[in-house]
Amino acid sequence: MITSVHNEHLKEVRRLARRRGRERTGAFVAEGEDLLAAADAAGWPARERYVAAGSGLDGVEVDPAVLSKVSALGSGTRALAVYGERWAAPAGPLCVYLHGVGDPGNVGAVLRAALAFAAGSVVVGPGCADPFGPRAVRASMGAIFSVPVARAAGAAIGGAAAGEATLVVGAEREGLPDDVIAACDRTVHIPIAAESLNAAMAATVALYELTRNRMAAS
Amino acid sequence: MITSVHNEHLKEVRRLARRRGRERTGAFVAEGEDLLAAADAAGWPARERYVAAGSGLDGVEVDPAVLSKVSALGSGTRALAVYGERWAAPAGPLCVYLHGVGDPGNVGAVLRAALAFAAGSVVVGPGCADPFGPRAVRASMGAIFSVPVARAAGAAIGGAAAGEATLVVGAEREGLPDDVIAACDRTVHIPIAAESLNAAMAATVALYELTRNRMAAS
Repeated sequence: MITSVHNEHLKEVRRLARRRGRERTGAFVAEGEDLLAAADAAGWPARERYVAAGSGLDGVEVDPAVLSKVSALGSGTRALAVYGERWAAPAGPLCVYLHGVGDPGNVGAVLRAALAFAAGSVVVGPGCADPFGPRAVRASMGAIFSVPVARAAGAAIGGAAAGEATLVVGAEREGLPDDVIAACDRTVHIPIAAESLNAAMAATVALYELTRNRMAAS
Repeated sequence: MITSVHNEHLKEVRRLARRRGRERTGAFVAEGEDLLAAADAAGWPARERYVAAGSGLDGVEVDPAVLSKVSALGSGTRALAVYGERWAAPAGPLCVYLHGVGDPGNVGAVLRAALAFAAGSVVVGPGCADPFGPRAVRASMGAIFSVPVARAAGAAIGGAAAGEATLVVGAEREGLPDDVIAACDRTVHIPIAAESLNAAMAATVALYELTRNRMAAS
């Protein structure tokens, strides 16, 4: 049983809470039994798995107080695991491209919406939160293990236009830069009375509408 | 300037983080300059207003470290204020009724969606998180100050059927109880590939669809 926060393995886990730590190792952490079960269900194997001693869960036992300190999301975590990141190529038929969506909760929620509406991939562009960061992973509620995630550098959507349709979503306040809008075939507008939808809610409505139209057309 | 967490006013503020404290006093707390600005814009006056000393913001100055301790949402808060709760009657034309939506983040996000799609009110039924709790208020991004909020006791939707349409939203896992569904005129289904939308995302899509239909009909 691990009883010290200075344990070398746990120190490495804590480094993965930061983007630099993840980029260096290509690994990320998921916390909580639900997320670990989602990874298992998706056939995505854990590199390491740590559980609270006495929890009866499967993994390397850690003193519960120590495990809470290792957690990037606060106390109460009974299990966490380290996974290798998987970056895919942009894919359709329906692809979601995020540009400047900096809030990790929104990036995670878009992954949930993408899973719900069967998008082929989510592409993160410049200025986006890392989908493998702890808050994005948590907000995805496990969708990070099911929805292919891709990266696009620069302002160009690049290969993201791989499918039938690429939905381009910008930040809430800044919106999309002109060059990104210019690269789109069509801009759509959700008829709202007040500017109070976040990027993930807007993406959810747009995915719903696109799915609806595809179903109506088929 | 207040320099102690034992200050009687601040102790009262901390009590409002709990439902019991809010029920006893009929008051709640909003944190952060954006939320306070939303209250001002809505003409909802603060009973008390506390700001970090040296911030230059308007209010009773508090040592920043002390203010962080008073915050229900963690450190970094530069301003918080106490407001009187306002409970409205259910109103339409479009009313959102929540049943068993226990996550405060979802309740707050539904308020955002209600604001975006101009719903007349949000009614919280049994088993819902308190819309005036700190996490719901934060998640509402200020919509709590614009959207009338009502309460309904018991399983009956009660007076919520005040408008043209009442959208009834249940919890993610449990769904809606049979007696609530029986009281509805129609049940609708969002065509999704995987059960990964939360209650707020589902409510957002439903509000969008209802708004779309009303616009098409007019």
